[in-house]
Amino acid sequence: MSENQPKKVCLVIGVGDGVGAAIAKAFALDGFEIVITRRARNLPDLEVIAQNIRDQGGVVHARGVDARSEEETVALFQEIERDIGPLEVVVFNIGANVRFSIEETTARVFTKVWEMACFAGFLAGREAAKAMVPRGRGTIIFTGATASLRGRETFSAFASAKAGLRAVAQSMARELGKKNIHVAHVVCDGSIEGVFARENIADLEQRLAEDRILKPDDIALNYVNLHHQKRSAWTHELDLRPWSENW
Amino acid sequence: MSENQPKKVCLVIGVGDGVGAAIAKAFALDGFEIVITRRARNLPDLEVIAQNIRDQGGVVHARGVDARSEEETVALFQEIERDIGPLEVVVFNIGANVRFSIEETTARVFTKVWEMACFAGFLAGREAAKAMVPRGRGTIIFTGATASLRGRETFSAFASAKAGLRAVAQSMARELGKKNIHVAHVVCDGSIEGVFARENIADLEQRLAEDRILKPDDIALNYVNLHHQKRSAWTHELDLRPWSENW
Amino acid sequence: MSENQPKKVCLVIGVGDGVGAAIAKAFALDGFEIVITRRARNLPDLEVIAQNIRDQGGVVHARGVDARSEEETVALFQEIERDIGPLEVVVFNIGANVRFSIEETTARVFTKVWEMACFAGFLAGREAAKAMVPRGRGTIIFTGATASLRGRETFSAFASAKAGLRAVAQSMARELGKKNIHVAHVVCDGSIEGVFARENIADLEQRLAEDRILKPDDIALNYVNLHHQKRSAWTHELDLRPWSENW
Amino acid sequence: MSENQPKKVCLVIGVGDGVGAAIAKAFALDGFEIVITRRARNLPDLEVIAQNIRDQGGVVHARGVDARSEEETVALFQEIERDIGPLEVVVFNIGANVRFSIEETTARVFTKVWEMACFAGFLAGREAAKAMVPRGRGTIIFTGATASLRGRETFSAFASAKAGLRAVAQSMARELGKKNIHVAHVVCDGSIEGVFARENIADLEQRLAEDRILKPDDIALNYVNLHHQKRSAWTHELDLRPWSENW
Repeated sequence: MSENQPKKVCLVIGVGDGVGAAIAKAFALDGFEIVITRRARNLPDLEVIAQNIRDQGGVVHARGVDARSEEETVALFQEIERDIGPLEVVVFNIGANVRFSIEETTARVFTKVWEMACFAGFLAGREAAKAMVPRGRGTIIFTGATASLRGRETFSAFASAKAGLRAVAQSMARELGKKNIHVAHVVCDGSIEGVFARENIADLEQRLAEDRILKPDDIALNYVNLHHQKRSAWTHELDLRPWSENW
Repeated sequence: MSENQPKKVCLVIGVGDGVGAAIAKAFALDGFEIVITRRARNLPDLEVIAQNIRDQGGVVHARGVDARSEEETVALFQEIERDIGPLEVVVFNIGANVRFSIEETTARVFTKVWEMACFAGFLAGREAAKAMVPRGRGTIIFTGATASLRGRETFSAFASAKAGLRAVAQSMARELGKKNIHVAHVVCDGSIEGVFARENIADLEQRLAEDRILKPDDIALNYVNLHHQKRSAWTHELDLRPWSENW
Repeated sequence: MSENQPKKVCLVIGVGDGVGAAIAKAFALDGFEIVITRRARNLPDLEVIAQNIRDQGGVVHARGVDARSEEETVALFQEIERDIGPLEVVVFNIGANVRFSIEETTARVFTKVWEMACFAGFLAGREAAKAMVPRGRGTIIFTGATASLRGRETFSAFASAKAGLRAVAQSMARELGKKNIHVAHVVCDGSIEGVFARENIADLEQRLAEDRILKPDDIALNYVNLHHQKRSAWTHELDLRPWSENW
Repeated sequence: MSENQPKKVCLVIGVGDGVGAAIAKAFALDGFEIVITRRARNLPDLEVIAQNIRDQGGVVHARGVDARSEEETVALFQEIERDIGPLEVVVFNIGANVRFSIEETTARVFTKVWEMACFAGFLAGREAAKAMVPRGRGTIIFTGATASLRGRETFSAFASAKAGLRAVAQSMARELGKKNIHVAHVVCDGSIEGVFARENIADLEQRLAEDRILKPDDIALNYVNLHHQKRSAWTHELDLRPWSENW
């Protein structure tokens, strides 16, 4: 990045699995200064991801933040805007995929999933709007899932939270578009390479070799492309799935 | 209702506006013993509605219940099943329509709207499932709105909660259908006659005279019809709107 | 039907399988004089259906009509309006379910399926509109299928035609609603008892005994209910599927 | 393009307005040899577009083809595969936007719109599949519109055709994805700069200056991006609309 160019900051909230890290890396390679967050107790893991991106030339700040906390989220945005630079891109990437029959879904689980996958997204979106609207520019991207579109069997908690997040994204897009803020929702429809997949998919290596599973780096390219879309033709929603997926 | 017929109980949660009362009345006229609920502080108003249905021959119990409270909701279902009779129909009818720009939507508003319009619906649906699944019969109906389908400008909180409720209904329908429980979601797409409309729509009388606004009794008929559908052909979702509506 | 009541006519186009016949019968029992159509070469079969409804007290006219022919369709509506009575209900019920891979879908098949399942529906809907709009009343119902909502593998021709028909229904609903004409689209999501099912589903008897397949009479009740909806709360679209369906 | 690289051919069907030309130009700049088509009587206009792209360094072939003709379409694909090179990208871009009330929509208009906007797309998609499947690679993109998703008032013919085309695209995506062919559908939701806009939008210059109208070059970038997506994360559908659009 040339010294004469103004600094552009990209915040990725929810850098726990591969997707958040890949998005952060992709924006770093695109010239952004990066802030990545994860809950405080996983800060050491987050620092490893940060260092990995730094090794590829990126400027990265890692922050331990509980994204469900209004106080911590507000403070995060204030710190970035004050000490790091103006937020140009904010990505909300927290999932919380759980499966329970409706009878076995506890109020605690239902609430926790909503706090992580929906409420935290609302907080992030709102604080991003507050920062970006006065400047009349910026991009806000939410990561969605199959469950954002359909409430399938045993997914009442997850689907409810993801559908709720999608509605926030849609409502924000309609409000903020005309203020020149681009709000998008990316539906990742399929399994994603990451910790969960490594523990749950038997033939993962085979699938990876054949691109039969969503790869974080391939997903991340689309986030960067969304940010670079010309404003006469902005996308609000797109789906991503492996070529081989049954859907 | 003949003395020889087994008692059928219908619970309507959220009888504050006209729709809940109309649904309760319609099921009472269809031979159900009715339980209606509203938060405790409005119990006197609820008793007026109950008496009105009793005057038309219905058997009605009014209960002051905070539908957002797991404890109170569980207790309500237990009391009904123990002291009143087996629940055949449960209707969740709480709305919470508010409008704020995204920047002005407080965490408190966003959470409250979700608690009332989504979380309380999950609790009601789950407790209904627990009561009905062992018997292998029953109908659970959720009231939806335009916002259930689309996140429009300034509706982030309401649309998020309603989309979240719709996902719960969809997930429950897929799980419980094959256990012979009918789960439906009714999208009321338009203004509804009621307290809100009386305060906000200038030409309400004209609109009512010409059926240009959703009338609670006309809505309610569809809930009773849903319950009476034959199980080879159940509806999960239908929309309702006035003939004259632009949509 | 009392002699003093004005005659009400219901036209059902596409009475080949069980659904068309069941709809005709249901409206006959509801007091309508019925006209049923099918292509001319199957007129003998259609007469059997007509006689069956007459045996239950209905007044039924059977007509051999090629629904894809503008000339024949226009003539049919003119004859009914002139010689039988004012059309109060028109149901379009022609399907054309075929499966081919995209490479094996001939232009002839693609066109024929569209002519039967979409173009004929447009013709019927338009002629119904022409008859009903001057009177400012009437109900028009289109039968849809799973393919109306999703283009699944090997269903390019059928899904294209059914999606096209659904768009016609939607556009007509928006135009004609405000002229007091009720336009509805019924999505039958699952296998339907009928000739096709009898030839293709091995355990059909078992499924029928357990209501695990859409039954024409159960479907038909919903068409009559749609017609009887109060106009402050009209449904445009509803889905129908067996309780046991995976979806 | 290096001499050692194999030739890649991109066919754009329906190069009448700005979008088709912009897509052709974008793929030409991306290194493709281009074939553009339009009905034969407009071949002189098409040659102007071709020359314009040649002036920017592209290799372009212009062909007068009636896309509704199976014979001409089959011959076009055969000629390209035989004489020009292997088709890597096929874009179907024919629209046919007309507005009539349902009563005033003639069978001729309904059929013509379907032939142009849906049937021709099916033919193009099928011939593309036939060429690409044996090679196990390729990208097929269909241009959609708002009407692809909703049947609005007075749009029965156009919405029916566009919904029908979308179903073809969806069905093809599910069939061909697992054969490594990427099928996408781009929903252009808003007015597009072009002949129609120049004749119908009073403040067009103002809108263009402020990017308040879809610009063909901005649309086209997304088609090239779709082609370059990694196959672990393919998009089937995305929407495009100006930042300032009400939707």
